[in-house]
Amino acid sequence: MNYRMILYINGCIMQIVGLLMLIPTVVGVYYWDDGLLPLLGVATGAVLAGTLIRLRRPENTRIRAREGFVITAMVWVILSLVGALPFIISGEIPKFTDAVFETASGFTTTGASILTDVEAMSKSLLLWRSFTHWIGGMGVLVFLIVFLPSSADEMNLMKAESPGPSVDKLVPKANRTAFLLYAIYTTMTLVQMIILYILGMPKFDAICISFGTAGTGGFGVRGDSCAGYSPACQIVITVFMVLFGVNFKVYFLMIMKKWKDILKCEEVFWYLVIYGACAAMVCFGIMSDIGSLAVSLRTSTFQVASVMTTTGFATTDFNLWKSMPKAVMVSVMFCGACAGSTGGGMKVSRFVIWAKQVRREISKFVHPRSVKRVRLDGKSVEEDVIRSTNVYMMAYLFVFVGSFLLISMDGMDMTSSFTSVTATINNIGPGLGVVGPAGNFAGFSGLSKWVFVFDMIAGRLELFPMLVLISPGTWRKK
Amino acid sequence: MNYRMILYINGCIMQIVGLLMLIPTVVGVYYWDDGLLPLLGVATGAVLAGTLIRLRRPENTRIRAREGFVITAMVWVILSLVGALPFIISGEIPKFTDAVFETASGFTTTGASILTDVEAMSKSLLLWRSFTHWIGGMGVLVFLIVFLPSSADEMNLMKAESPGPSVDKLVPKANRTAFLLYAIYTTMTLVQMIILYILGMPKFDAICISFGTAGTGGFGVRGDSCAGYSPACQIVITVFMVLFGVNFKVYFLMIMKKWKDILKCEEVFWYLVIYGACAAMVCFGIMSDIGSLAVSLRTSTFQVASVMTTTGFATTDFNLWKSMPKAVMVSVMFCGACAGSTGGGMKVSRFVIWAKQVRREISKFVHPRSVKRVRLDGKSVEEDVIRSTNVYMMAYLFVFVGSFLLISMDGMDMTSSFTSVTATINNIGPGLGVVGPAGNFAGFSGLSKWVFVFDMIAGRLELFPMLVLISPGTWRKK
Repeated sequence: MNYRMILYINGCIMQIVGLLMLIPTVVGVYYWDDGLLPLLGVATGAVLAGTLIRLRRPENTRIRAREGFVITAMVWVILSLVGALPFIISGEIPKFTDAVFETASGFTTTGASILTDVEAMSKSLLLWRSFTHWIGGMGVLVFLIVFLPSSADEMNLMKAESPGPSVDKLVPKANRTAFLLYAIYTTMTLVQMIILYILGMPKFDAICISFGTAGTGGFGVRGDSCAGYSPACQIVITVFMVLFGVNFKVYFLMIMKKWKDILKCEEVFWYLVIYGACAAMVCFGIMSDIGSLAVSLRTSTFQVASVMTTTGFATTDFNLWKSMPKAVMVSVMFCGACAGSTGGGMKVSRFVIWAKQVRREISKFVHPRSVKRVRLDGKSVEEDVIRSTNVYMMAYLFVFVGSFLLISMDGMDMTSSFTSVTATINNIGPGLGVVGPAGNFAGFSGLSKWVFVFDMIAGRLELFPMLVLISPGTWRKK
Repeated sequence: MNYRMILYINGCIMQIVGLLMLIPTVVGVYYWDDGLLPLLGVATGAVLAGTLIRLRRPENTRIRAREGFVITAMVWVILSLVGALPFIISGEIPKFTDAVFETASGFTTTGASILTDVEAMSKSLLLWRSFTHWIGGMGVLVFLIVFLPSSADEMNLMKAESPGPSVDKLVPKANRTAFLLYAIYTTMTLVQMIILYILGMPKFDAICISFGTAGTGGFGVRGDSCAGYSPACQIVITVFMVLFGVNFKVYFLMIMKKWKDILKCEEVFWYLVIYGACAAMVCFGIMSDIGSLAVSLRTSTFQVASVMTTTGFATTDFNLWKSMPKAVMVSVMFCGACAGSTGGGMKVSRFVIWAKQVRREISKFVHPRSVKRVRLDGKSVEEDVIRSTNVYMMAYLFVFVGSFLLISMDGMDMTSSFTSVTATINNIGPGLGVVGPAGNFAGFSGLSKWVFVFDMIAGRLELFPMLVLISPGTWRKK
């Protein structure tokens, strides 16, 4: 294990976090609020600590797969710890566990909160809270890669942090790919901010909500999440949630005007089909209670987009819905968005690969001698990708059951225990019951909150980096 | 597709069911009750219909994999329909859907019931209901194979009907293996009957409860399932539930005195470890409410054995337990018993194979060049078995979510909808909420009941026979 390099990269990340924290610090100056000094102090401290760590540059800069996974997992744990400091120092989230939960929820773009009154927070800390979504959405290591000299090793970091069964490079070089991803991401975020501002949303809200949408996070800045915004704003948020759930490769292909290649993206096709079908089912299910088709359609398209892309904004308390629309919501929670997007969950592409394997198996019984390969986007899927997709499901199952059993010790009802794990491991935010859109995670025990922190980070990194980090075999000397 | 052979085997099965129905008919003569005439009539009709169908013996007796799957799925559907007739004709379960649900629940060893007052049924029909568990537990095609001349083709029937990722032949010939399985099965059932009778259980109850235990079914003959029997009887039932959840290969090895091979059975080891751990957790979780350690231990060992082996008997209403023991029960529902036993669920061996794949994947990240194979019982597991084990999980996921969405239209609460699917697809019987041990399936709509019938049969046959049956590709001419 290349310990020096692990330490070095963590130093870089400390510097980056410190520098990024200057943005909410500026907001703190503007509003001259209680968040200013804690943010400034932690930002300075993080940059200094990072610089100290980086003083000794490692001679061996090799990052193999194992270092890639360990670095990624450690970086995300450190992010959650450092990012939590301003909340603790300011006294706005005084408890250590709560502050780490809230920050991990931010960076992992979960959006689950332990806050009972979000509007009481200072503006600068609220902005930092939403900004963590934006940083975590595309990934902080992807951000770092932009500035690293190009080498084969960056891919080991990118693979560990980017969501989906396989990672596409848009262009041959990893640092150029990372730059393009961030350029598209920033542009789309800015466009959303401007549209929301034009439609009459307050400046501060427009910025925070856009960060939350772009990262598919879900932290709001009001007690009622998005219910108080105008219908036009809600529709714009719906559209951008769906857009940020699409594989970013599609936007790259748009820029390159490769329209034919876009049509070949099976995952995006199924993403839109599942989204449309579920929104229709939910709309049908809530119509009788709401009365108006227009409102039902606006609510269902918003809520299904919010949960499927794992954003977690709410315009209504879907915990109060009937069983059928609620069952659709729970199913969609697991599905998630596209690979290569900022969304969480299991990802549509994995479900497509699983469904095709089932179809292949059935046809194998009927035609035992036929050799069929699983194909995606017109190309046959490599056996390595199929294997890792399948193993992901098993790891998911074990982490899920383990977490569910630990959480159940808190004595919450079954639905709350089950969906609280669902909402954190899939990086959604709200679940049902006590963790429904109108509830929060404040009532859980300390142990449960740490289980959720683990699930959120494990879910964001698609399990294996965290499993490699805690596996004794990783640290055993041969 | 060899349609003639499919028809022919179905004819054999009609005859077998008719003959087996004579056993409860004899009980009907003994008690001279309302079930006698319907049972006698349907038994005669089934034997006659089977004989008519079998008049034309097919020239081509080939049973390929596809015919094996289609025959198995069809046989189980026909069993459920023919077996339901005595209930309908006697008027004791007048509705067609209800009677088919109850019979499918019987043959698939689920034990889910739509009856609200089981003690009002006539004795002969109650015995038929419990006897379906016994027939379904080891499998009716396995029973047929005993009488078939040995050929390579029988394995295609055995594979489709026997539970677990791979089917072991105990001895080289399929018909001899089937005979041995039924011999062990019958002996163990008789031993249980005699012990229960000696311990003071009424004769009729001892017979029915033993059929229910042997098949891991769970239909009782009293309103309170097993709560009314003496502690000694409950302990005996616990022991036999655990024994019938063990791979029958172990008993064969015992007869052959191959003790070393028994110790190599990893699945049985993990089955007992999981059982012990879960029973301990449940015992710990219910202790504070029950007070006595002895009663908690008796209750937890009984209930965990009942749910893990997918039997479904109850000595208490675990729906009223706290969250933690309830969460353990729900987790154990999916786990199931050993492959090659009469139990349902996903089977312990599949979980072992999945866990080993996750471990292999983690160690691959750390040592990328090492080539590790998944090993079970000291032998490396064939890639084909791994593939089919993985695809099983995916198929399970899709069938589960589809069923869950359909059931949710009935408007039951989330826990009831979720666990009703869990309890049927895993062939357990009781779930939580309205389908808890004190509840039943009577309140669901007709559509939901048919979904459950599908799930019960699909679950019993481990999904693929039913999926092959309903897949259009199976019936398309090339």
